[in-house]
Amino acid sequence: MAEIVTAAMIAIGDELLSGRTKDRNIGHLADIMTAIGIDLKEVRIVPDEEGEIVAAVNAVRARYDYIFTSGGIGPTHDDITADAIAKAFGVPCDYDAEAYRMLEENYRKRGIEFTEARKRMARMPVGAEHIPNPISTAPGFHIGNVHVMAGVPSVFQAMLDNVVPTLKTGQKLLSATVHCPFGEGLIGDPLAAIQKDNPETIIGSYPKSFEGKFSTDIVIRARAAEPLTRAEDAVKAMVATLQRAA
Amino acid sequence: MAEIVTAAMIAIGDELLSGRTKDRNIGHLADIMTAIGIDLKEVRIVPDEEGEIVAAVNAVRARYDYIFTSGGIGPTHDDITADAIAKAFGVPCDYDAEAYRMLEENYRKRGIEFTEARKRMARMPVGAEHIPNPISTAPGFHIGNVHVMAGVPSVFQAMLDNVVPTLKTGQKLLSATVHCPFGEGLIGDPLAAIQKDNPETIIGSYPKSFEGKFSTDIVIRARAAEPLTRAEDAVKAMVATLQRAA
Repeated sequence: MAEIVTAAMIAIGDELLSGRTKDRNIGHLADIMTAIGIDLKEVRIVPDEEGEIVAAVNAVRARYDYIFTSGGIGPTHDDITADAIAKAFGVPCDYDAEAYRMLEENYRKRGIEFTEARKRMARMPVGAEHIPNPISTAPGFHIGNVHVMAGVPSVFQAMLDNVVPTLKTGQKLLSATVHCPFGEGLIGDPLAAIQKDNPETIIGSYPKSFEGKFSTDIVIRARAAEPLTRAEDAVKAMVATLQRAA
Repeated sequence: MAEIVTAAMIAIGDELLSGRTKDRNIGHLADIMTAIGIDLKEVRIVPDEEGEIVAAVNAVRARYDYIFTSGGIGPTHDDITADAIAKAFGVPCDYDAEAYRMLEENYRKRGIEFTEARKRMARMPVGAEHIPNPISTAPGFHIGNVHVMAGVPSVFQAMLDNVVPTLKTGQKLLSATVHCPFGEGLIGDPLAAIQKDNPETIIGSYPKSFEGKFSTDIVIRARAAEPLTRAEDAVKAMVATLQRAA
């Protein structure tokens, strides 16, 4: 059986905690991780405060194979992610020569002043490597197992596309969904029994309510096809039994 | 100056980490907390694993005034939030007599069997108090400073509506937004100077990109009107200066 590969995400930004911005990166990362066979195990949203970012990064980077961050790498004073990551790794944060050159050239071509603020976007922990940014030039970076990306969703997604091919991936979690026209109250007992009989699977049930009528999507996950099919068949048989009884 | 009141949220559910469900409760809670003057300081998304839920609850409940959880209080085997919260508080998890009676009556009226699975929804940590659920009867609960609510957004929102009047609230963070027709690279330096001159405010800038043109919303926050207005005026003057120069 292939290795299980795990990840955590840290979304950085006061605007996510004030409600001003509704995060769109967590769900996107979750989708991509599931698609490539990496288990996203934890997400934290933290404010633009260095101590909070450092504590969160250090709490998760030893526990999981990969850490992904979003936000706080732009040119303004509240963009403190690069400094915080450097502090978490105990290395200096400094201008990266190649990032500086790319940004300088980009602004020169566009006839725009390369201000001190814009130069900030070339700063990263010493020893970090770039994550290319095809949208707005200023690169993200990774150091150790921590991948630091922008908060703007289009840039986050483009950076992640550049990161994905570099990741080791695990045995993909296979999944099957059985739609059940009954609410969770009716299926809870037999479903618990099926879960108990199928310990190699993870069975979740997701209730839906439409016009006052409850139904459930039952999702079975497993790392191999055989236990998945066995549990899926058991769930289908349960639903069929309930339908005959209804 | 009024007290500052803080909160954290723990969103519970494998489906949020797999991408199958896109969370809608975090943004809603953030909006409500901002509206009533409570600072949401941290959010964690954790899987349906008892150890993870216990660790997250115990990590945050000593740090913040209020903790809000979503998810995992339904009738199925993967609904383990009540047990995990009980474990975090070191108390037993048992059937609550009043919740049991309410659920029993609800199902009796509807002519539906009160199954073992449905009875699970009456379980809560001993000593917890109900959070009424006007939508689907099964109550949430609070114990100490931890408020445990459903994951289904309509039920989460209804439960939160019942919790809000019970919370002490702090000095509301006032906010003003100045739209700036320039990107962050241009405003970063003067904005950092304004932040430095206005330490009683928190100034954030949120870049937007439309048809390749960058602009920025500059948001100033403060707990009193006077420093807010002073910083807002400084930001407006900065934007006006940039516009004359453009």
